[in-house]
Amino acid sequence: MNFTNFDKTAAYGKLAELAPAYRHFDFVSALKAERVTACTVPMAGGLSYNYAAKAVDDAVIKAFAALAEEQELVAKYHAVVDGETMNTGEGRKVLHHLLRGRFANAVNEKGRDIGEFYQNELKRFSGFASDVRAGKIAPAPGKKFGSVAQIGIGGSDLGPRAICLALDNWAALQGRKKLNAAFISNVDPDDASAVTASLPLAETLFVLVSKSGTTQETLANELFVRDKLVKAGLDPAKHMVAVTSETSPLAHNSAYLDSFYIDDYIGGRYSSSSAVGGVILSLAYGMETFSEFLSGAAEADKLAFREDIHENAALLDALIGVWERNFLAYPYTAILPYSQALSRFPAHLQQLDMESNGKRVNRNGEAIAYSTGPVVFGEPGTNGQHSFYQLLHQGTDIVPLQFIGFNESQRGEDITVDNSTSRIKLNANLAAQIIAFAKGQKVEGENRNKEFPGGRPSSLIYGNKLEPRSIGALLSHFENKVMFQGFVWNINSFDQEGVQLGKILTKKVLSGNSGDPALDAYSKLLEV
Amino acid sequence: MNFTNFDKTAAYGKLAELAPAYRHFDFVSALKAERVTACTVPMAGGLSYNYAAKAVDDAVIKAFAALAEEQELVAKYHAVVDGETMNTGEGRKVLHHLLRGRFANAVNEKGRDIGEFYQNELKRFSGFASDVRAGKIAPAPGKKFGSVAQIGIGGSDLGPRAICLALDNWAALQGRKKLNAAFISNVDPDDASAVTASLPLAETLFVLVSKSGTTQETLANELFVRDKLVKAGLDPAKHMVAVTSETSPLAHNSAYLDSFYIDDYIGGRYSSSSAVGGVILSLAYGMETFSEFLSGAAEADKLAFREDIHENAALLDALIGVWERNFLAYPYTAILPYSQALSRFPAHLQQLDMESNGKRVNRNGEAIAYSTGPVVFGEPGTNGQHSFYQLLHQGTDIVPLQFIGFNESQRGEDITVDNSTSRIKLNANLAAQIIAFAKGQKVEGENRNKEFPGGRPSSLIYGNKLEPRSIGALLSHFENKVMFQGFVWNINSFDQEGVQLGKILTKKVLSGNSGDPALDAYSKLLEV
Repeated sequence: MNFTNFDKTAAYGKLAELAPAYRHFDFVSALKAERVTACTVPMAGGLSYNYAAKAVDDAVIKAFAALAEEQELVAKYHAVVDGETMNTGEGRKVLHHLLRGRFANAVNEKGRDIGEFYQNELKRFSGFASDVRAGKIAPAPGKKFGSVAQIGIGGSDLGPRAICLALDNWAALQGRKKLNAAFISNVDPDDASAVTASLPLAETLFVLVSKSGTTQETLANELFVRDKLVKAGLDPAKHMVAVTSETSPLAHNSAYLDSFYIDDYIGGRYSSSSAVGGVILSLAYGMETFSEFLSGAAEADKLAFREDIHENAALLDALIGVWERNFLAYPYTAILPYSQALSRFPAHLQQLDMESNGKRVNRNGEAIAYSTGPVVFGEPGTNGQHSFYQLLHQGTDIVPLQFIGFNESQRGEDITVDNSTSRIKLNANLAAQIIAFAKGQKVEGENRNKEFPGGRPSSLIYGNKLEPRSIGALLSHFENKVMFQGFVWNINSFDQEGVQLGKILTKKVLSGNSGDPALDAYSKLLEV
Repeated sequence: MNFTNFDKTAAYGKLAELAPAYRHFDFVSALKAERVTACTVPMAGGLSYNYAAKAVDDAVIKAFAALAEEQELVAKYHAVVDGETMNTGEGRKVLHHLLRGRFANAVNEKGRDIGEFYQNELKRFSGFASDVRAGKIAPAPGKKFGSVAQIGIGGSDLGPRAICLALDNWAALQGRKKLNAAFISNVDPDDASAVTASLPLAETLFVLVSKSGTTQETLANELFVRDKLVKAGLDPAKHMVAVTSETSPLAHNSAYLDSFYIDDYIGGRYSSSSAVGGVILSLAYGMETFSEFLSGAAEADKLAFREDIHENAALLDALIGVWERNFLAYPYTAILPYSQALSRFPAHLQQLDMESNGKRVNRNGEAIAYSTGPVVFGEPGTNGQHSFYQLLHQGTDIVPLQFIGFNESQRGEDITVDNSTSRIKLNANLAAQIIAFAKGQKVEGENRNKEFPGGRPSSLIYGNKLEPRSIGALLSHFENKVMFQGFVWNINSFDQEGVQLGKILTKKVLSGNSGDPALDAYSKLLEV
């Protein structure tokens, strides 16, 4: 395979040549009903990707296709699932896709089929979850677990938390919700203190999640919780399971009711499909829910192999993002789900994208001379409309947008006011925003305060309903999008060396020898 | 007073001339213990502002002072509290400071002292809150209100919600929490459906907040709630109060238990100190709590009048932000509170800043040729460290940072692991991050994957404890910072015309005549 810095490709030159004509793309003329219908790519889980309001046309998409071919984007994805060492920084395979599907070539290591190992763990934890839900595994005779609380941070928190929030209402109405889900993440002791105070400890099962078994925050919070359990007269070993790697100090430890394993080939931010997300999702909403989630993700993973960019939404989305980042020079992108259930999905995507592609060296550690991952932020609509959309519409800079919407609400309860339901109002707002951002509004006269410049590009992912399959497909779509962008930029999207220096300096401070008087001065201000 | 576009000032030229030397500010040499101690400005509420890790020195701060004088920043603030028409777009006064303090000149209109009107409403709603808390106002004989749920969106939601989250644990431990606070905001019917399902309706008081009385989302959610109350056999008039303006259709309406008023001079995002924040805060945590919050804000408002920039943290923070936006050319800024209780404070600041200063015309509606408000985003630490900090440390672009930290936790519960408490770990992480971002880390050899470029500037707001006075001071600090930046940029920070076009197009869609086939095509995709 060919690993070339992006700015050394022929496609880079071609896109740079095209770009000036698209910096003031005329959406007023271009954005017609036919374009809205035509610019749709089917996704998995019943979703579709629409890019009618992006500043692209056939010429640009042709250049995208040439770029995809030149940088061998789909071939590199094949290399990922085939078990090549694609995480070059850490010398590791990248196997999260294998958590939800099997591919032509099995990935073996030391005589072990890794896909089989993942399937085995899946079986083990789904069996465990069934037993807990059925009351066969219980905190005490005659009692049942009614709550599950995950102790984890970063990838062990944001994805699973966002998915639980996305499915909680849906699962409750389906009669699938049996345990309440809660999360403890921050080392701020107020987090563990408040969450444990809100839980019925005697009926709560804690899921300790740390791949390395050495995460400072998570270990502190584990001991916080153990201490509370003991003080409540409970046996922590009956209230806690571990999700970790087999080589971690937490593995095979009788301090836990049971332990479920992942390995080094599952990055934290890519781990929602593993036991990291699976244990709490299966416990709270049942194995069927988690299976449907996995099948949505697997279906999306399959579509991401399509060579034709018009059939590969993750690839197209990725290349539009590159176009906006490197050639239209927009340094950020906003994720705007018109769904209250997706309120924390932008926080997950923020980690997924910024931690994967916030890199300044290529996969070999050499400096690069072009921009990589953008800043990602977002809040659900319509809330954001009454908040930061002012800047999106009338600020001095352009922020590319990614909308998400659904045709049905999850809970079904609604009210008709002024001849429309709230669901209809929600989606009418979404449609109106796309047009307002793209086309803007001219004003007559000298006062331009009510003028909208337009030219703000957006895409739309839409589907029938937010349920396990669609959230699985959504998650995989963004994982694969981020992966393809990393391939374009020739960076390693799978390590996170940027988190290390802070950890090292923190340890020095805590050991009482920071080695830097300025750091000591800050520590003093903060009474460390 | 002199209203000049920023790029026409002498100070602009001076700062532009200085800037190139600061784009690669040498923090390794500059950031010494003495600088950390020296670069501290006292704030209100026991807080301090530290800018040691910002790319400024005496020469830059001297230029800031000249800019402050030339653009008459403090004089314009005086004009605000004196009741000048500083919201030029809507032809309105800007009087949120008057909600929490009185100034030399009373502001009168049509024979009415507006400050007195605000004080009167404060008295009325605090009396109401006391009566509810004491059980004198009750949903039914023998019953008491145990929950309060606010129905509002944007400024009627984000600030009050962030403050309730910030104070909930604190108030509970102080024995001041008597009602649980909840919020309904999104027009997505799943929001109102899920929140109302989680509330004991018979004991819940709803606070309907809409200044205009015409907010689409809020009116839909009000009817949703009324419908639920009726279906539960309850009388909505006994379960709902209104916060609105006296000219709104909701005013003086027997459909509410009581009504509390604000006026057009209180912008939504500046309304937390009014009945918009005060009713729910007083109900949930008591009048004393809200009074302390107001006094912290009033104290910060006073400090913001200081002419000496070394004594005026809001002014200095504002000018550092302008320096970073216009001269160092950073298009975003991150808010990073090391406090779980401040988890939604970044979302409030995102609205405050982006809605106020996301403008592309000056206060007279004329186009301007320089950048205004940045994109603002953030999550609490240490959580963010395990998420998007990778990009902040090692991305291709620089994101300026604003840290917030406290010396004491709110709940007091803690655990010692490896010789340090979680609170100590939290703050050790914060101190370490400031140094890691500023100084970075060089590496030997060709592989630069573990290299940290440093040069990432940050400020730190720190204090003893997050409590009503400090959150009031924090809120006011950012309000005044944003106001001063608007004065520098010669824009109107107090209107939000950018929200209008979406509203108009939504109405057209809902009326069945959008006038735009592309909009109809999007509506069809979304089954509107």
